[in-house]
Amino acid sequence: MNVLLVYAHPEPQSLNGSLKDFSVQRLEAVGHQVQVSDLYAMQWKATLDANDSTVSPLGTRFDPSLDSQHAFANGLQSQDIELEQEKLLWADTVILQFPLWWFSMPAILKGWVERVYAYGFAYGVGEHSDLRWGDRYGEGTLAGKRAMLIVTTGGWESHYAARGINGPIDDILFPIQHGILHYPGFDVLPPFVIYRTGRVDEARFAEMSHALGQRLDNLAHTAPIPFRRQNAGEYEIPALLLKPDIAPERVGFSAHIK
Amino acid sequence: MNVLLVYAHPEPQSLNGSLKDFSVQRLEAVGHQVQVSDLYAMQWKATLDANDSTVSPLGTRFDPSLDSQHAFANGLQSQDIELEQEKLLWADTVILQFPLWWFSMPAILKGWVERVYAYGFAYGVGEHSDLRWGDRYGEGTLAGKRAMLIVTTGGWESHYAARGINGPIDDILFPIQHGILHYPGFDVLPPFVIYRTGRVDEARFAEMSHALGQRLDNLAHTAPIPFRRQNAGEYEIPALLLKPDIAPERVGFSAHIK
Repeated sequence: MNVLLVYAHPEPQSLNGSLKDFSVQRLEAVGHQVQVSDLYAMQWKATLDANDSTVSPLGTRFDPSLDSQHAFANGLQSQDIELEQEKLLWADTVILQFPLWWFSMPAILKGWVERVYAYGFAYGVGEHSDLRWGDRYGEGTLAGKRAMLIVTTGGWESHYAARGINGPIDDILFPIQHGILHYPGFDVLPPFVIYRTGRVDEARFAEMSHALGQRLDNLAHTAPIPFRRQNAGEYEIPALLLKPDIAPERVGFSAHIK
Repeated sequence: MNVLLVYAHPEPQSLNGSLKDFSVQRLEAVGHQVQVSDLYAMQWKATLDANDSTVSPLGTRFDPSLDSQHAFANGLQSQDIELEQEKLLWADTVILQFPLWWFSMPAILKGWVERVYAYGFAYGVGEHSDLRWGDRYGEGTLAGKRAMLIVTTGGWESHYAARGINGPIDDILFPIQHGILHYPGFDVLPPFVIYRTGRVDEARFAEMSHALGQRLDNLAHTAPIPFRRQNAGEYEIPALLLKPDIAPERVGFSAHIK
């Protein structure tokens, strides 16, 4: 299959760089086609602004949504954005690989999301009615594709446990896995997380690359996180609250996982 | 008191721009000193990289943490970073104002955090022992100061409710309020959130600016979110798990709030 690896680390000779190289080799070795968006190497423009369109703002002021919509619908997007959208459409599986910086993705990758996820491409898609609230959360332009995070963090695994001080890793990643990946339609595989990156010797690198290799070998067969689909009858529309009879005792992020 | 407003929206004539102008006027009217870091107007460099130091990387490769530590400790940081750190030290209260894009802060603001929060300034501070795990989560360089978010979002309030599809707003903001603000020591006030920004007429703007004005008037007296302090005896060190007798039935982000 076609795999897009979107990678955000400034140093090629880092743990992240080594894991990226390993992943590309492993994926190609089993016959996949691989494209890498190495955002630092590409000097990716991180900041969403009026220059993301080749024409001036529609109105007297720049509107991030409406000007994105106009540029997307009329082929007026900045070329770097178009190229990334083409890669997303080409891919069967998309991997985002990054170090967890301040409990989220690096700014350069956040800016990739903001700019590539145009209005009409990743949001503002589909009809709004009494039965549907757009094609999102399980439906949309990227439906039928798979996505997965590869994340490194300096903190210890216990710090990200259910009662760990940073909060559970699944909750920290929810805004990305659910809000950025499930939203435009991806099936999201469980993340591959590496903790305590300050202590990686050769033996540990061999161990983690073995485990990562197995995850990559099984990309097509790994069960996705069972996020609920917005328009499948479990949410009130347009309030988008879980209906009272759906997991009535549950609140918070995990309520949106079956 | 001294108030620093860090503001991230590309369009001055936006709702965010109007709220920023309102906030500055209101704060100055009651006698506060105000500085604004208008990140788009400053053309803030969003991407953390080796150019954040005025000297070459220490080793053969760039290490985001170690090179940040070296630059901070030796006065070798890029000037834009130093200036923002000075503003943080000057401030009694720091407000971050931004539109919620893809369930987090805009990339330009994330990049402000990544670059300004140097090793030795916002992390890597204090001793690690059997009793303490650095000065963080309630202690640190910015302890004794207050912080608050002003956030706008296009989605409806119900979409961010306890059972709303996006997840509860408090959980979406936890990695920022706890992981970015409480971490280096801030007392974090409850956020001021405006929903459904696509539907703001004059009457609604008057209403929200009235409510915001009251929040700004009460900056010094509003009770902060009671996040637990890492080194106050409630966490096991170094596992940083809540001790079994502390809120034994609770897990997840909210367990870290008293």
